[in-house]
Amino acid sequence: MAKEITSKKVDYSQWYNDLVLKGGLADYSSVRGCMVIKPYGYGIWEKMRDALDAKFKETGHVNAYFPLFIPKSFLSKEAAHVEGFAKECAVVTHYRLMNDPNGGGVIVDPDAKLEEELIVRPTSETIIWNSYKNWIQSYRDLPLLINQWANVVRWEMRTRLFLRTAEFLWQEGHTAHSTSQEAIEETERMLDVYANFAEEFMALPVIRGKKTANERFAGALETYCIEAMMQDGQALQAGTSHFLGQNFAKAFDVQFLNKEGKLEYVWATSWGVSTRLIGALIMAHSDDDGLILPPKLAPLQVVIVPIFKGEEQLNLIFEKMKPIMDSLKKSGITVKFDSDDQKRPGFKFAEYEMTGVPIRLAIGSRDIENGTIEVARRDTKEKSSQALETIDQHVIELLEEIQKNMYQKALLFRDQHIRNANTWEEFLKMIEQPGFIDAHWDGTPETEEKIKELTKATIRCIPLNNPQENGACIYSGKPSKERVIFARAY
Amino acid sequence: MAKEITSKKVDYSQWYNDLVLKGGLADYSSVRGCMVIKPYGYGIWEKMRDALDAKFKETGHVNAYFPLFIPKSFLSKEAAHVEGFAKECAVVTHYRLMNDPNGGGVIVDPDAKLEEELIVRPTSETIIWNSYKNWIQSYRDLPLLINQWANVVRWEMRTRLFLRTAEFLWQEGHTAHSTSQEAIEETERMLDVYANFAEEFMALPVIRGKKTANERFAGALETYCIEAMMQDGQALQAGTSHFLGQNFAKAFDVQFLNKEGKLEYVWATSWGVSTRLIGALIMAHSDDDGLILPPKLAPLQVVIVPIFKGEEQLNLIFEKMKPIMDSLKKSGITVKFDSDDQKRPGFKFAEYEMTGVPIRLAIGSRDIENGTIEVARRDTKEKSSQALETIDQHVIELLEEIQKNMYQKALLFRDQHIRNANTWEEFLKMIEQPGFIDAHWDGTPETEEKIKELTKATIRCIPLNNPQENGACIYSGKPSKERVIFARAY
Repeated sequence: MAKEITSKKVDYSQWYNDLVLKGGLADYSSVRGCMVIKPYGYGIWEKMRDALDAKFKETGHVNAYFPLFIPKSFLSKEAAHVEGFAKECAVVTHYRLMNDPNGGGVIVDPDAKLEEELIVRPTSETIIWNSYKNWIQSYRDLPLLINQWANVVRWEMRTRLFLRTAEFLWQEGHTAHSTSQEAIEETERMLDVYANFAEEFMALPVIRGKKTANERFAGALETYCIEAMMQDGQALQAGTSHFLGQNFAKAFDVQFLNKEGKLEYVWATSWGVSTRLIGALIMAHSDDDGLILPPKLAPLQVVIVPIFKGEEQLNLIFEKMKPIMDSLKKSGITVKFDSDDQKRPGFKFAEYEMTGVPIRLAIGSRDIENGTIEVARRDTKEKSSQALETIDQHVIELLEEIQKNMYQKALLFRDQHIRNANTWEEFLKMIEQPGFIDAHWDGTPETEEKIKELTKATIRCIPLNNPQENGACIYSGKPSKERVIFARAY
Repeated sequence: MAKEITSKKVDYSQWYNDLVLKGGLADYSSVRGCMVIKPYGYGIWEKMRDALDAKFKETGHVNAYFPLFIPKSFLSKEAAHVEGFAKECAVVTHYRLMNDPNGGGVIVDPDAKLEEELIVRPTSETIIWNSYKNWIQSYRDLPLLINQWANVVRWEMRTRLFLRTAEFLWQEGHTAHSTSQEAIEETERMLDVYANFAEEFMALPVIRGKKTANERFAGALETYCIEAMMQDGQALQAGTSHFLGQNFAKAFDVQFLNKEGKLEYVWATSWGVSTRLIGALIMAHSDDDGLILPPKLAPLQVVIVPIFKGEEQLNLIFEKMKPIMDSLKKSGITVKFDSDDQKRPGFKFAEYEMTGVPIRLAIGSRDIENGTIEVARRDTKEKSSQALETIDQHVIELLEEIQKNMYQKALLFRDQHIRNANTWEEFLKMIEQPGFIDAHWDGTPETEEKIKELTKATIRCIPLNNPQENGACIYSGKPSKERVIFARAY
């Protein structure tokens, strides 16, 4: 096969890039830090989006759309927020080009300078709360449960396909509530939505937790997250949900009349996941032969490769498979019959392994005579011969089985790679091994920073429902009430 | 009722704005020329998007996503294209903000100036063809049938909600073909897709035609369009499909090896519709009481208003309606039971008329005793009493009937407002009346410009399958072979 993939043992990072590029998921663009999401990659995003959107709607949210541009002064209204986002943003300063009078092509028209610069949104809290000010007057206008699907821009210096790009696609939920309690419940509810989505659809086990103060979203009182383990043992933050308190309501003066007729500031949450999840999906499951996609997110779930000589045999096979394909399509399964006569079956097999199609069916004239068909599953690479008559039912069950198996495999891998460290020496040794470390920490940002400086490990989260136990901080030796999760992370 | 709408006879433009704002479709934002699409307006866009997306996929297209930013030099590569778009674009010149050392808040960091400015895409031909260069080598890579759902920015000086905003949402198809013939067929196919969508879903009759050279897309050899008539008789361009020839392939050097092994430039099309369609939808159908939405695009299709005193009566009505709602939901119909006890039924009736819900059901205790229910349709405002037992079936049929009736009404209105003008005096008189004018034109841009200057009327299109007849140009008197459509337009 022409497209060779670097082995993940040889170079994990190159293996990942090979999968993205050769699997046809994305491509580099001519714009620094921006990628092109190719149709196959976008097909995965569409499935993610549809599944998440359905969950958002089930939990009472509606979609809306707010401006791409944020007036520069808006960013400054929330002090912590501007610190977090001002360093990495695209700034629009002009609104017109003109022909260079000296013949140098097209140049920026100096007369078309904006009075106030516009920032391309890195996140939309400010522009949205500026609207909420007009929409919220009384407790009867609350809760306001709005989500937005959009592109955002953060001028990252070191970028990686899907994982960290200057522009990315995401959804951002922004909700407004009349009480702190209700906002916290919403924050937790959406974390659960994300965790359930990761587990059910991405076959990706996640740890639900809270971030330390250091790692919080700029402007949040509390940031909840889900953390997943990649196959190299590093952590990947797969979604965050923020309790924003009254910070943005105060910054944009959003008050409501409560039932007692008194003015109060509104309580806020925000939460988001992005195309970064596609990076997580690839790194959690794939192997040296290519992508392994969970059936629920695979753009193509089943491919049929006919083994034939000449058009007559091809037609015979197609006629036999047509009702089976119709039956599968009726069950909502995407299936393709690959009749290309320019490629050999072996080449096709490798190509569909590369692109992670969960089930491959191969069938030739002799199979038809025998009433059988060859079934290959991508996750385990097992092959078996199955009865042609009941193949549609078999495929439906096998897709479910693959989905479950991928989750179980990832869960087993993760659980085998979480270790307790009880001394600093243990910690230093373990952090060079793949996996997460469960260790005591004294609760101070200083210790957290120091550990990061010495080992590149960060505190991924303080797990929810974390067992309480007395211990000593792994680094400072000071008393601690619970262990937290340390890891190197994407 | 609190929310008063200006009558369309008094001030058509204010009537339109009232509907958008008071109907809850959109809001102004703090960013010049940019609007907020509110959940109810976005709900319409979601339905439009889903219907169009299904049609694009049926015709073999896939979605992808390309960068928001376009390097300035790319725009200049196609000469006509840069002329058309350079005048109205947002330019990113810097990538970082900083704290003002003089304490003046946040300012643009002068050290973070981009080497080459980036343009926020006004349309994506250039950035996409720059990628196509890497994706297309041989005839086997063609056709490439890609669509993108995205936001774009054009720095319009005079903006109007939905109709003309600096940022808007749209889809843009960009296809690549091995022959001119195939590209022209694609251009025409997508025009049909748009026309069918407008007629089937928007209940909006459209004229399919070609633009004159003056009105073509910047960089196209031929621009096809669909033109619709609004209730004030003005035209609104509801979608365009462009045959781009080899212009972009030459600008970005995209060649392919044909079957004979020779290098040829690739043939291109592009086509798009935008959130502008929501403006068309409003102006084509609504009245002085509010929006009238076609059932196929209404976010809420049926509302049930219970007439009750006290919780017991409310529960009784709800119990009775529950199985009917379940039956409607099963048929894919969106239905809401409005149990709000803070608003009187009359207030609710007015509110649902304002928001254009196609069918309103009202039911009280006495109706239940009689086994009847009141049905009000929004399009004609007719009310009738129907048997409760078969109301679900009645609603399903009535929704179809409303969809058809809205189309027929719009069609009748349009056909009554297209007139032939045979002299310049007739033309001058007719152009002050609502409607389109069918008249001879000598085919020159000069005459077209002159007529526009004198009357504000433009040539909307040269209809497809236009009857050929000899005549004299309405303005110059020079010979002409066919009539074209003139109108004032949005």
